Amino acid sequence: MNKQELLAGLQPDIELINESMAADFSSIGSSRLAEVVDYAVFNGGKRLRPLLTVLMGRLVAFTRMPEGIADEEDLRPPPDLYRLAMVFEFLHAASLLHDDVIDHADTRRGKKTANEVWGASTAILAGDYLHTRAMTLAGLVGGQETLGLIGQATGAMIDAEFLQAQTVADVNLSEENYFAVLRGKTGALISSACEVGALFAGADRDQRAAIRTFGDALGLAFQVVDDLLDYLGDSASTGKAIGNDFCEGKMTLPLIHAIKNSPPPQKQLLTDLLTSGGPADRQARIADVTAIIAEAGGFYYAKQGAETLVSAALEALADFKECESKDILHGLAHYVLSRDK
Amino acid sequence: MNKQELLAGLQPDIELINESMAADFSSIGSSRLAEVVDYAVFNGGKRLRPLLTVLMGRLVAFTRMPEGIADEEDLRPPPDLYRLAMVFEFLHAASLLHDDVIDHADTRRGKKTANEVWGASTAILAGDYLHTRAMTLAGLVGGQETLGLIGQATGAMIDAEFLQAQTVADVNLSEENYFAVLRGKTGALISSACEVGALFAGADRDQRAAIRTFGDALGLAFQVVDDLLDYLGDSASTGKAIGNDFCEGKMTLPLIHAIKNSPPPQKQLLTDLLTSGGPADRQARIADVTAIIAEAGGFYYAKQGAETLVSAALEALADFKECESKDILHGLAHYVLSRDK
Repeated sequence: MNKQELLAGLQPDIELINESMAADFSSIGSSRLAEVVDYAVFNGGKRLRPLLTVLMGRLVAFTRMPEGIADEEDLRPPPDLYRLAMVFEFLHAASLLHDDVIDHADTRRGKKTANEVWGASTAILAGDYLHTRAMTLAGLVGGQETLGLIGQATGAMIDAEFLQAQTVADVNLSEENYFAVLRGKTGALISSACEVGALFAGADRDQRAAIRTFGDALGLAFQVVDDLLDYLGDSASTGKAIGNDFCEGKMTLPLIHAIKNSPPPQKQLLTDLLTSGGPADRQARIADVTAIIAEAGGFYYAKQGAETLVSAALEALADFKECESKDILHGLAHYVLSRDK
Repeated sequence: MNKQELLAGLQPDIELINESMAADFSSIGSSRLAEVVDYAVFNGGKRLRPLLTVLMGRLVAFTRMPEGIADEEDLRPPPDLYRLAMVFEFLHAASLLHDDVIDHADTRRGKKTANEVWGASTAILAGDYLHTRAMTLAGLVGGQETLGLIGQATGAMIDAEFLQAQTVADVNLSEENYFAVLRGKTGALISSACEVGALFAGADRDQRAAIRTFGDALGLAFQVVDDLLDYLGDSASTGKAIGNDFCEGKMTLPLIHAIKNSPPPQKQLLTDLLTSGGPADRQARIADVTAIIAEAGGFYYAKQGAETLVSAALEALADFKECESKDILHGLAHYVLSRDK
């Protein structure tokens, strides 16, 4: 499945997710609040999380059908699956709204951020609204188990933000602790997006475990690729400055690998920049740093790590029936590896 | 019941609410996050909202017991009532954390705000954590109906913040629209704190309606008194500058009444300050403004309004059995009227 086929396959679900979100905003009283959340949610995002919910719901529903009863395309998912899916887009948008306030970011995906357009207070409150709405829908549409999964994932995300702050410039950070932070920061929400879709469609215990494995691995791969793009991406595509993570002292996989595997002088330079240099010193040496990481095989190592994770994710789906949703999930997983923004 | 008796009567429940919150924080992984939410929640707050949940739960449980079976003090509420009560303290603390970021406030109740101690990002994230945790507990401990009530109240709070922003310096704002904003901003959460306690204790439809009436009226009274304290309070007690609302152009009941009932020259002065003056112009004339409002009977009118609301609240409890919880609820309602901070 090439990228064009993938996008065409996803389009109908994306439209239903979007319709569901727009309908939900119609209950908002303040026209300004409605305008801000609309702006935040309809911002050119890829809808990865809600798509995972819908696709997992479809995959499980089809796998659970007796053989020969129906084609997959006859199984139209109920509107509630899309309402549950949108919960993940709301949570994602809420966290981006608050992140942009925290980072004083003025653009995102080439558009002004909400805090830039309306100010930080409005962006904070709009994030709070999406957050509240998401948690409420999680429980009302999905039930208590769904709410528990999502509550745990959202709590873990915030907890991980604090843990990550504690690891800044920690040149001895282990890969294990790096992945622990990743698991909370991105993995938890992606994994619960998958599991909630499976739960909705009545997955049994083994199916849920398999889908959790898929989600965990895909979430980690997604973030490892993000960390790679931070060094190697094209600023024009990613919309972010190259080497931003290093400047902020963020310890990501390529860097951790390089510190462990570089010859003493290079290792010393990285360590000095991280422990005694400031963001400006790091920025000034970013080309050297990137070369050192490349020389130590840090990027190759991280890329391989992401590939291994994606393979593990896809393997977890082996026992589900072959169908269009499964093909698309394969396509999405490969897209996560090859994306350039 | 005098203030001392009231506080003594509330103390055991306050302690159980506090224990419940401290226990909940023990699941947090990041020591920094645990420290910040602890700081935000154990900040000398009055625990009004969670106390209402507990007291309503007790009042309903006792009223529903057959006559002569048990004294009220034998009815020990289950720990889950306290866990549900703490949801409201978490939501309240989350909204204060975000409000203080939005207002760039550096102190609250005589202590540094979290944004002052740890920075805005930490305060935003800690608020998000409390918010998530509150919504999750609402659904897991209370069930879907409880979650629905709380979700609606929290959404209404944010919606009302936006609506209030739209009414700044609107000299034609009607009392009706003023109360509509109040209902969302403070009333909704106080009212749902009451209703959730009643629901937990198995209140029937009439009992729930009565308790909702109590909560609505008490929540409005609470906010009207807040608006009065903004003009008439003692800065040392309230910790806020006098006339802050007027400086920000907030249209509150004393001011709305004064604009409607002042002679033309005074009315003109108020209108000019609100529509063409800036915060500094308003600050400079705050003594005159206060005198004009007093002359027009604005403070008296608002105080009377709050008293009428509290009477209506207490009347709604008439059909519940006489017991200690009911006495305390009466005491709390009177405290709302007489509080000076």
